[in-house]
Amino acid sequence: MSAWRHPAAIADASISFEFVKETALKAEAGKLDFLFVADGLYINEKSIPHFLNRFEPLTVLSALASVTTNLGLVGTLSTSYSEPFTVARQFASLDHLSKGRAGWNVVTSPLEGSAKNFSREKHPEHALRYRIADEYLDVVKGLWDSWEEDAFIRDKASGQFFDPNKLHTLDHRGDFFQVAGPLNISRTPQGRPIVFQAGASDDGKKLAAHHADAIFTHHETLEEAQHFYRDVKGQLKNHGRKDDDLKIFQGVSVIVGKDADDVENQYQTTAALVSINDALNYLGRYFEHHDFSQYPLDEPFPDIGDLGQNSFRSTTDEIKRNAQTRNLTLRQVALEAASPRPRFSGTAQQVADGLQQWFESYGADGFIIQGGTPDTFPRFVDEVVPVLQARGLFRKEYPGTTLRESLGLANPVNQFS
Amino acid sequence: MSAWRHPAAIADASISFEFVKETALKAEAGKLDFLFVADGLYINEKSIPHFLNRFEPLTVLSALASVTTNLGLVGTLSTSYSEPFTVARQFASLDHLSKGRAGWNVVTSPLEGSAKNFSREKHPEHALRYRIADEYLDVVKGLWDSWEEDAFIRDKASGQFFDPNKLHTLDHRGDFFQVAGPLNISRTPQGRPIVFQAGASDDGKKLAAHHADAIFTHHETLEEAQHFYRDVKGQLKNHGRKDDDLKIFQGVSVIVGKDADDVENQYQTTAALVSINDALNYLGRYFEHHDFSQYPLDEPFPDIGDLGQNSFRSTTDEIKRNAQTRNLTLRQVALEAASPRPRFSGTAQQVADGLQQWFESYGADGFIIQGGTPDTFPRFVDEVVPVLQARGLFRKEYPGTTLRESLGLANPVNQFS
Repeated sequence: MSAWRHPAAIADASISFEFVKETALKAEAGKLDFLFVADGLYINEKSIPHFLNRFEPLTVLSALASVTTNLGLVGTLSTSYSEPFTVARQFASLDHLSKGRAGWNVVTSPLEGSAKNFSREKHPEHALRYRIADEYLDVVKGLWDSWEEDAFIRDKASGQFFDPNKLHTLDHRGDFFQVAGPLNISRTPQGRPIVFQAGASDDGKKLAAHHADAIFTHHETLEEAQHFYRDVKGQLKNHGRKDDDLKIFQGVSVIVGKDADDVENQYQTTAALVSINDALNYLGRYFEHHDFSQYPLDEPFPDIGDLGQNSFRSTTDEIKRNAQTRNLTLRQVALEAASPRPRFSGTAQQVADGLQQWFESYGADGFIIQGGTPDTFPRFVDEVVPVLQARGLFRKEYPGTTLRESLGLANPVNQFS
Repeated sequence: MSAWRHPAAIADASISFEFVKETALKAEAGKLDFLFVADGLYINEKSIPHFLNRFEPLTVLSALASVTTNLGLVGTLSTSYSEPFTVARQFASLDHLSKGRAGWNVVTSPLEGSAKNFSREKHPEHALRYRIADEYLDVVKGLWDSWEEDAFIRDKASGQFFDPNKLHTLDHRGDFFQVAGPLNISRTPQGRPIVFQAGASDDGKKLAAHHADAIFTHHETLEEAQHFYRDVKGQLKNHGRKDDDLKIFQGVSVIVGKDADDVENQYQTTAALVSINDALNYLGRYFEHHDFSQYPLDEPFPDIGDLGQNSFRSTTDEIKRNAQTRNLTLRQVALEAASPRPRFSGTAQQVADGLQQWFESYGADGFIIQGGTPDTFPRFVDEVVPVLQARGLFRKEYPGTTLRESLGLANPVNQFS
């Protein structure tokens, strides 16, 4: 929330390409799978500071494509406020530009306010957003199959540019979309870009089991992570898919220190930067920008009814459940939300222990490192990655050049072949 | 049309980032203002070969942003099939990534078939498309003014990230768009990205006079170019603008050779690659993908009524007028359209003479070099640019780092300041 105030932070990091590029090159030095760019379509004066002023995902990932060589480039884009033809094209183009490193994190836009930026009367309700997303992904995947891999012949002598038998016009007509195709870009180096999904509600899990190659999720405890892992993997068979067809990434915040005192110091230094007003704003964003400053701070978390059901449903359910179970005050809930304790902290060995335990006991197939302190990420690469490599838990070289190869996913079959 | 078959051509140039990057670096070596990326939203099996498989403009320009330093990056995007909030964001993001080199070529989509890729019953008619575009540009410019230049304070000590007095929420409510804002990205290095306009119809010229910083147009003769130049510049005062506020670029095809025979040889080699079927397909695209193969080839150009009025209006008017005036057969019209003779050709001195004449007699403020043969562009930079520089007609160094500086355009004022 307020980490930009940290003495070690670059205050304008969210709009600094130098920072983004340095981070990407660091990730690549650590042989990490991908860089993941979050997004949102609505801000107001109470929004999280670095959300007010940030790069748009497709453009910044494309800029990274030409200065990196192995790193996957994953960006968030909403199916509720975009056109499948354009989005299919832009991610296909990124996949070509990066020679097979594009990933799309499919979201349905949690923020009610998004509708106001897109000429809509109201934000579609949760279940409808997921119905739209499901059809949207059918369209995009159909467009990505417009051309078979070897459709372009380019025979200068005969003048034949492509084989018309390997061109497929989608002609999709559904409940929400009518899209003819074909797409005006060839089949991509990965067959198609990697599809991530980030919603943890029941609808979100169902969408992921149907369409996604990877999930970005977040759980507080190993038990919850294992439950989620079993649940989602169990749903794959409903769609004729195997466990290995979908990789589950847990988003984890990390602090690496030389000992427990150092870690606690690092956490307290960062947490102290958050004012209670900032924390209330941060909390409010999850609940349709609700104004929590109207309630007493040191009394139990207020009863706000169903607020949040149509935005960050899984997160708000968790916040409310947690407040009730632990009998927390509003102040406690807000500060915990805005400055959460890191999921894994300690020495590099201890952080590696935690990740190893979650990985080996089926809590996650991998991790997305987020949050912590401004120097968490470079320290993670410099200190934790070598420990994981020494234990044989992480690669020392990239297996190939595509994100698909890094994730160990099979090549997709063209539905029209 | 068929230049990909040329022995010197890279047949997959339209989807080769190596080719695009090499072209951009060559343009930068020649101190050119910008690279211009065209676009289209509909293809079928009769489309121009390199339109079947090409990069999406925003992504390829973003990829160029990180490997070039002075070159303007101009991309085509349609106001008929996109959302102003997204487009404002993406071009603002490109402007930040390139440190002030983004340009948006505003088009309204000439191709009827575009509707079929965007869940629309029909393609909006010409006048309506331009009414939409006019309001669209009001919205986008309003969003680009969301934040004043110095809105972000980022004071770590006080915790103040921005000055709320310098944040402006648009709250646009118009005939076609309702967009609240603010945009989630700060004012860009150029104040706002450069706006190009490429439609030459009366509606197109009106839109340009109201909103554009630059025009990409095309005329066959100096007289036509001068007439257009006077017409558009004359309309600027209706919007309180001055002649210098809008730069007019003529798109010109060029062949540079060592003498007249060499030029003719180069032209014939390229023209011979076009089959009559390819030429008919090429022609048909301008007329709503009309099938011209149904008419006799060696009789006068057929009467096709108003066909083309709702697509490439100014181009189709010109083709029909030209066919009638010169009493051309269908074969002649098709081959001339698909393999036009270069506007300027000859030795480097002769090509420079032609450009100088058009420039000095108010036919153009500048030129976009297009077409010719596969080696036209590098030869133009290597041979013609030095002549223009020696004559004092073209720069030897960039005047600054932004496209706005290269074009000599004033900084825009924030409408809310």
